[in-house]
Amino acid sequence: MTTPCILCVAITGSLPTKENNPAVPITIAEQIESTQEAFEAGASIAHCHVRDDAGKPTADPERFAALKEGLEKHCPGLIVQLSTGGRSGAGQARGGMLPLRPDMASLSVGSNNFPTRVYENPPDLVDWLASEMLAHDVKPEIEAFDLSHIVQATRMAADGRLKGPLYVQFVMGVKNAMPADEPIFDFYIETLKRLAPDAQWCAAGIGAAQHTINDWAIRKGGHTRT
Amino acid sequence: MTTPCILCVAITGSLPTKENNPAVPITIAEQIESTQEAFEAGASIAHCHVRDDAGKPTADPERFAALKEGLEKHCPGLIVQLSTGGRSGAGQARGGMLPLRPDMASLSVGSNNFPTRVYENPPDLVDWLASEMLAHDVKPEIEAFDLSHIVQATRMAADGRLKGPLYVQFVMGVKNAMPADEPIFDFYIETLKRLAPDAQWCAAGIGAAQHTINDWAIRKGGHTRT
Ligand SMILES: [Zn+2]
Ligand SMILES: [Zn+2]
Ligand SMILES: [Zn+2]
Ligand SMILES: [Zn+2]
Repeated sequence: MTTPCILCVAITGSLPTKENNPAVPITIAEQIESTQEAFEAGASIAHCHVRDDAGKPTADPERFAALKEGLEKHCPGLIVQLSTGGRSGAGQARGGMLPLRPDMASLSVGSNNFPTRVYENPPDLVDWLASEMLAHDVKPEIEAFDLSHIVQATRMAADGRLKGPLYVQFVMGVKNAMPADEPIFDFYIETLKRLAPDAQWCAAGIGAAQHTINDWAIRKGGHTRT
Repeated sequence: MTTPCILCVAITGSLPTKENNPAVPITIAEQIESTQEAFEAGASIAHCHVRDDAGKPTADPERFAALKEGLEKHCPGLIVQLSTGGRSGAGQARGGMLPLRPDMASLSVGSNNFPTRVYENPPDLVDWLASEMLAHDVKPEIEAFDLSHIVQATRMAADGRLKGPLYVQFVMGVKNAMPADEPIFDFYIETLKRLAPDAQWCAAGIGAAQHTINDWAIRKGGHTRT
C-alpha cells in the first residue's frame, strides 16, 4: 500500500428497510450509535443517508442536520459525508443539505442503468450540485459507476467546476452497471492517475461484490468502504 | 489492419435539420440518392434515421419501410441498419420498425449523459428491443457510449438475450459522455476481445472527434463510419 488506508463506513444505504434486515439502523439515534461503534473500530469517513418517520429515504436537511450534529458530538474527528444520491429526493432537493457544510458529500457526475431503472443525473443538476459544494466548501466524493464518470470528474476539476484534488469512489457490482472486474478496476486507477495525478480514490462493492472490491482496494492502495 | 474495413455511412442523423445544414438529406428520396452515392464510393453499411413531413425525427415504421425498400432496390448488397435511438421515439415505439426485418438495427444497452439531457435506455426497454431483434432475426449494432455498455453487451450475448457474434460501435466525442481518448479506445478493444473474443467492432466520432476516431478505427482494425 502506498497511501494510508481510510476506512469508510456506509450507514444505512438508501435501499434496506427494517423489514428485510431488522439490524439496519434507521433512526438518527440508531445511526449515531452504530457509527460510533465503527468509528471506535477505526472508520474515518461515514457515508450517510437518512430516513423519514416511515423509514423511507429522504433528503430532508433537518434530518441530515440532526445526524451530522450527533456524529460530530459522539465521533470527534470522523469525516461526515452526506449523500446527494437519487433515491432520497428529486432534482435540487438532493442537494438541500449542502448549506449544512458537511465535510464531504457524494456526487454523481453521469447517468447509468441500475437494476430496474435509469439512475438519472442530468448535466444541469450535476453542475448545480457541484456549484453548491464549491459555495459551501464541501468536498465531493465522486461516485463513479462507469468509466466516463471518472473522465467527466477530471474535466470538471480542470475547468473549475470541482475543486481538486479529486476524491473518487469506484462503484462495482450493481446489476446493469459495472460488475466487479479486475482489469477494469486497474484501468479505473490508471485512467484517474493519468488524467488527475493528484486524485485519491476509494472503492465500494455492492452486494456479493463487497468483499472482492474491499480486497482489491486494500491491495491496490485505495480506501475501502464497509 | 487485420480485418477487412467496412465503411459505414450514417444517413441523416437525428439532430441536423435543413435549417442548420441545407445539404442534409431529409426526404426518403434525398436519403436514397445520397446513400447511393456513398454506396458507389464503397460504403457497405448504412445507418438510417427517418424524418416526418415536418423534418422531425420519427420512428414511424412506414417511413422506415419506404427507405429500406428504396435502398434495397438502388443499393443491392448494402447492409441496411435502422436506428432504434432515443431521439426518434419513446419506449417501445423505438422498436416498431423491427418487424420489417432490416439486416441490422442499432441498440443501446445502457444509459448515459448527453450534452443537455440523460440518454435513457431503461433495462426493461433494452431487453424488449433485444428480444424483438432475436424474434425478427435482426443483427444489433451495440452503441457503446461508455465502458459498461460493452460489458453489458457481452453479458447479454452470454445469457442468450443477444445472438453472437457481437458487433459493437464505440461512440466518442459526445459532450458529457466519453471524449475521444486513445488509451480508452484501446481499452475498449481489449475489453471487448477479452469478454467476447469473436466480437467485431466499429467506431464513430461525433462532431470534432469524427476524423480522429476514423483514423484510430482504421489503424486499429475496426470499421469506420462517415
Ligand atoms: Zn469512500
Ligand atoms: Zn449512498
Ligand atoms: Zn458502424
Ligand atoms: Zn443513429
